[in-house]
Amino acid sequence: MADDGAVTVYNSNAITDPKKNTFSIKVGLAQALRGGAILEVNNSDQAKIAESAGACCIIVSEPVVGGISRMPDPSLIKEISRSVSIPIMGKARIGHFVEAQILESVGVDYVDESDTLAVADEDNFINKHNFGVPFVCGCRDLGEALRRVREGAAMVRTQGYFNRSGNIAETVRSVRKVMGEVRILTNLDEDELFAFSKRIEAPYDIVAQTKQMGRLPVVNFASGGIVTPADAALMMQLGCDGVFVGPEIFDCSDPYERVRAIVQAVRNYSDPRMLAEVSCGLDEAMAGLNLGENRVEHFGNRGTY
Amino acid sequence: MADDGAVTVYNSNAITDPKKNTFSIKVGLAQALRGGAILEVNNSDQAKIAESAGACCIIVSEPVVGGISRMPDPSLIKEISRSVSIPIMGKARIGHFVEAQILESVGVDYVDESDTLAVADEDNFINKHNFGVPFVCGCRDLGEALRRVREGAAMVRTQGYFNRSGNIAETVRSVRKVMGEVRILTNLDEDELFAFSKRIEAPYDIVAQTKQMGRLPVVNFASGGIVTPADAALMMQLGCDGVFVGPEIFDCSDPYERVRAIVQAVRNYSDPRMLAEVSCGLDEAMAGLNLGENRVEHFGNRGTY
Repeated sequence: MADDGAVTVYNSNAITDPKKNTFSIKVGLAQALRGGAILEVNNSDQAKIAESAGACCIIVSEPVVGGISRMPDPSLIKEISRSVSIPIMGKARIGHFVEAQILESVGVDYVDESDTLAVADEDNFINKHNFGVPFVCGCRDLGEALRRVREGAAMVRTQGYFNRSGNIAETVRSVRKVMGEVRILTNLDEDELFAFSKRIEAPYDIVAQTKQMGRLPVVNFASGGIVTPADAALMMQLGCDGVFVGPEIFDCSDPYERVRAIVQAVRNYSDPRMLAEVSCGLDEAMAGLNLGENRVEHFGNRGTY
Repeated sequence: MADDGAVTVYNSNAITDPKKNTFSIKVGLAQALRGGAILEVNNSDQAKIAESAGACCIIVSEPVVGGISRMPDPSLIKEISRSVSIPIMGKARIGHFVEAQILESVGVDYVDESDTLAVADEDNFINKHNFGVPFVCGCRDLGEALRRVREGAAMVRTQGYFNRSGNIAETVRSVRKVMGEVRILTNLDEDELFAFSKRIEAPYDIVAQTKQMGRLPVVNFASGGIVTPADAALMMQLGCDGVFVGPEIFDCSDPYERVRAIVQAVRNYSDPRMLAEVSCGLDEAMAGLNLGENRVEHFGNRGTY
């Protein structure tokens, strides 16, 4: 783009060395997860159940014991990675690029810069262009999603504002928001993109690309409150590329069956007959909380990211 | 940039045909005005005075008669262009791309998408990438300046919020704001650029470029209240590339001498001896208004652009 220097200087190497950490390769690695369910697990047993039930990836976390929640112990990740062969995702705190460096060195396949953990940097996310491993980041609207892509996220996860509410309403709200904003964008006049970018506080170039593609430029999963096959299929029909399932799914007598049912629902999301079949005779699901309840723990920094 | 597709799709032609309207050429045309004074004139006589006094460019406007102020009559522009040989700038209303098309067809050298005129589109500026003629747009902070550059402005004009106040304080405030924000940006860590871009609501790529260059990526003039040689030199010492001078400069008995003094001050802005010399014996300047006075006419849509 030598003839248009004033808008393209950053492309080659201002933010990253493309030969080392090519963004499109990371986007492709994240696309490998499309149409799958990512299970959050706390130990090897759960990881094995998830793998055998057909999860496309597991995300390792440690049960929160109060106080600051952090990256899981690397030895737990190593132990779990010895027990399964599907890809493993590790969680790092927002802005904690050293936790991400550790996770990358331990050999995780993906890093989740997660707002379900404590926040390490209140202002800045990790510059994910500095890493070879693909990152996933949370979002609640289109602007947040595209800001994360600009920082190098190869995948986003549309989620709510609360932790472990087990309530799908939150996730539906965010997914409908993101998808609705993409539809608005797709129908804008080219000249209106500048003001739209300012309004959603997202970089113009990626906004223009999203319009061109008619969808987010990276894989978009849904997360939060997904505990039944119907929940999972709902997210897929709303346009998500896959789902995250929390560790509470293992709080039942036959987690294999429940995970299996969700995986089947994700794969056959538009087939009501199949959805009815996998929804039959499951153990009782996690109770879930109404959003007004006191026990609901607020997370994330609403409106800041 | 085939290896980094996800962030560069827009570059070749999503917003413009670079072969037809190359941005860097327009930026270069605007750079030709560096170190000069641009005089606003209402008729051929004033244009001739401006030219003979050394103005680098004139901007044609019609005296405001109350009501909606618009693009000047094209016949006035044609008449003035026959009487002088320096470049001519025409004023179009914000968002009024047809006024800009008319100005381009009349053959003006630059178009000023001016917030001193009425606003034609409350949400969207002109997509200046669609034009071959270079545009100048007003700004009051760094974010506004870089948003205009993203829309294709080849030049910006740092200005205040009031029309014809003749008060330099406003302009100084905006110029210090823009220059101060550039200094802050220049000293940021690379990883902080994403959050900074969001904060000033400007596109990341041009923010990164501004950091790399250590200055605005286009020529930046000062405008508003500049009526003495000292005013003009102040703007230059604060880091501006030139000044706009309003038509009120002609409201004195010897406008040639006053314009000449300002042109000399812009050219020799760091030479106090020369500045003292050209400041001597000038006619009385425009009275100017204190910003608190009722007569001050507010313009622009504070905070919206």
